[in-house]
Amino acid sequence: MTAAPDLLKRLRTALPDGSILTDPDVTASYAHDMASFCEAGAPAVVVLPRTVEEVQHVMRTATELRVPVVPQGARTGLSGAANASDGCIVLSLVKMDRILEINPVDRIAVVEPGVINAVLSRAVGEQGLYYPPDPSSWEMCTIGGNIGTASGGLCCVKYGVTAEYVLGLDVVLADGRLLKTGRRTAKGVAGYDLTRLFVGSEGSLGIVVRAVLALKPQPPQQLVLAAEFASTAAACDAVCRIMEGGHVPSLLELMDRTTVRAVNDMAQMGLPETTEALLLAAFDTPDPAADLAAVGALCTAAGATEVVPAEDHAESELLLQARRLSLTALEAIKGSSMIDDVCVPRSQLGALLEGTARIAEKYSLTIGVCAHAGDGNTHPTVCFDAQDPDESRRARESFDEIMALGLELGGTITGEHGVGVLKKEWLAREIGPVGVELQRGIKQTFDPLGILNPGKLF
Amino acid sequence: MTAAPDLLKRLRTALPDGSILTDPDVTASYAHDMASFCEAGAPAVVVLPRTVEEVQHVMRTATELRVPVVPQGARTGLSGAANASDGCIVLSLVKMDRILEINPVDRIAVVEPGVINAVLSRAVGEQGLYYPPDPSSWEMCTIGGNIGTASGGLCCVKYGVTAEYVLGLDVVLADGRLLKTGRRTAKGVAGYDLTRLFVGSEGSLGIVVRAVLALKPQPPQQLVLAAEFASTAAACDAVCRIMEGGHVPSLLELMDRTTVRAVNDMAQMGLPETTEALLLAAFDTPDPAADLAAVGALCTAAGATEVVPAEDHAESELLLQARRLSLTALEAIKGSSMIDDVCVPRSQLGALLEGTARIAEKYSLTIGVCAHAGDGNTHPTVCFDAQDPDESRRARESFDEIMALGLELGGTITGEHGVGVLKKEWLAREIGPVGVELQRGIKQTFDPLGILNPGKLF
Repeated sequence: MTAAPDLLKRLRTALPDGSILTDPDVTASYAHDMASFCEAGAPAVVVLPRTVEEVQHVMRTATELRVPVVPQGARTGLSGAANASDGCIVLSLVKMDRILEINPVDRIAVVEPGVINAVLSRAVGEQGLYYPPDPSSWEMCTIGGNIGTASGGLCCVKYGVTAEYVLGLDVVLADGRLLKTGRRTAKGVAGYDLTRLFVGSEGSLGIVVRAVLALKPQPPQQLVLAAEFASTAAACDAVCRIMEGGHVPSLLELMDRTTVRAVNDMAQMGLPETTEALLLAAFDTPDPAADLAAVGALCTAAGATEVVPAEDHAESELLLQARRLSLTALEAIKGSSMIDDVCVPRSQLGALLEGTARIAEKYSLTIGVCAHAGDGNTHPTVCFDAQDPDESRRARESFDEIMALGLELGGTITGEHGVGVLKKEWLAREIGPVGVELQRGIKQTFDPLGILNPGKLF
Repeated sequence: MTAAPDLLKRLRTALPDGSILTDPDVTASYAHDMASFCEAGAPAVVVLPRTVEEVQHVMRTATELRVPVVPQGARTGLSGAANASDGCIVLSLVKMDRILEINPVDRIAVVEPGVINAVLSRAVGEQGLYYPPDPSSWEMCTIGGNIGTASGGLCCVKYGVTAEYVLGLDVVLADGRLLKTGRRTAKGVAGYDLTRLFVGSEGSLGIVVRAVLALKPQPPQQLVLAAEFASTAAACDAVCRIMEGGHVPSLLELMDRTTVRAVNDMAQMGLPETTEALLLAAFDTPDPAADLAAVGALCTAAGATEVVPAEDHAESELLLQARRLSLTALEAIKGSSMIDDVCVPRSQLGALLEGTARIAEKYSLTIGVCAHAGDGNTHPTVCFDAQDPDESRRARESFDEIMALGLELGGTITGEHGVGVLKKEWLAREIGPVGVELQRGIKQTFDPLGILNPGKLF
């Protein structure tokens, strides 16, 4: 798709040449994020602003010419929320990548949206501070993208999701006006919580151009324990016992047999091939060994066949490495994968895993599951050959059936990946017609022309 | 004000007699909350529903007849947000006071809005669980009121405010329809965060009839340290050192000399009369004595004249009792008080206290300050004689001047008490015209007829 000459002319009045990409081969590379099965159009133009004023200019231009705008971070998302629509302006925020402030007394950081998660994490770490949200893509993904998708990670069982760390935002609205929401303070209740409304809104309400983030003090290095189980049910029982016992692990992850084998096949990590489920628990407390001992005992009581506490940081990192490789390893099984993101009350984790196994059998598919077990947040990953139309169809159907099961168990269709294009038909099922009507009303209030990331969420 | 016969007739079609109060002497007692200087009208009728269906009936009736509805909890609020308007239906939720579920595995409670905060806290405590939000009024205030005002308390420096504990809501909308928001799960990002939008919305968007609340495991009993300082500046410096040092106190409170003396005068507690500022720090960690020793050393380094760690729970409770009596004691000085609620970045706490002292001098007023110092959330309390018109005028002016100072220092006009009637002119100053316009748009989406708690917030 070629941009209308008028659009380019107007964009150029306030954006330098290098900030505007029009070569179709180049713009096509900005067409989609990392989700499977999501339509993506051809952008008319990609803009890479470096200042708030440039973003405002883009939005004013888009409003005048009624051109849709798709905001993007690093495009590591898994729901198609950053996918281009035909003829749109792709507004990539990756060049706005400055850390503006790190304040150890107020425990806040002020950043532009293009800052890479890991860059921020390391920068605050140097000052004894901690920015917890750690999605798998943390070495690539941007804070702006994390805010747009309200992303989670391994830390959430203790530290919560991105939403809990966003105190205030500067947002360029659809018409180019600048809105400041929230605060730099620890608390604040002045009016409706617009900050939180933007978190997870997938760029459909405005363009985040600056964020005030809450930080925590850096905790001690975590120590990890691995426990093997002869069934996923026993592993899920252990999760329930750990949480009911009042423990606060900094990580509580589950890998099923398919996942464990896939990781071994890819990386020869020597994980226990015969296990049906591997549970990883970690503590970043003052005495993690004591906590691991208590949790290890609960695992044994739940039927763990082996419990191996790491003795140091290096061993802990090795175990986490296995978990971090899971998705890549599952994808390698058949060349393609669809990663689901169903979150259930943790008491229903066993039922969800059992049901997922049943669904895999029904559709003759390999579905590996890794899960943020402490949150009840599972990532059933359907492995399939995208060249095989029948298998692809079955993959898609099984994926939907897992979401239906999640809802049935009192859960949500997305714990941390968002709705985007992938799950928009499912959003209505989860929130119901009244919820959809109100959400559309909010969208209308913020973006009356409907130019911000159209076709996502609803 | 007498209710139109038609209104009463319609209400009675679905509400039992005892749920409808019309005696003007009785309804007048529901006219206002605990805020000073806030207008309150005369309700036409007070209704006390016991079921969701009854609330729906009230809202349907109100919509049909275009009658304003003012939702109320225990009316312990401090901003007039629960004040009646003339001819309104006061919708008191206090009879919907059931705890529906406490789930230790999922760490959630499901409650009706009229449950008293302390009742819930004790009930979950019996199961080894902890519901942190603890506003001063916790023995009287309701969870519904806490949600409406996003209330805080002493625990926030470690555990955050009410908003962080609300996972999902059932809300009766202005037109009587039932909306379900959020989730029972630890995580969830399906669509815009409507749950958070209702928290702190002061009953202006809908009537909360059920809430899913997140719980934490019960921490160890906290141990408290008291430190005396020869200046508030030194005490604020200690606060900054403690937070910069990476400590995570479960409480970090400051009382100035006026407050300390007022508490002594009222309760003969033997607090140090010569101190300019008393700092209370607490830890609920596995080894609180060690944490208190570290924090005590920081206080000494900042110039504390005396540091007294409590040796046990009883001593700790005595120190906290002094803090809890502060507001009542300040009110007793002159018979009336206006409690402000300005929150600044904690690095600006010293500047706010210094400025407040200057303002007190300028207006020849006694202004006592107690503060959730770890949050930068101060409660400058203007003591005045309400019978003295000139002093009352000065009280009001000084109150406003403190808010202006808070904004100047990068803070907010309200850290935890809300906007209500008291601060609605100030909300616009804080959030600006674009923010006001969007907030009004949201209000319009949820309550197109403007019948829900009119005259509040905006």
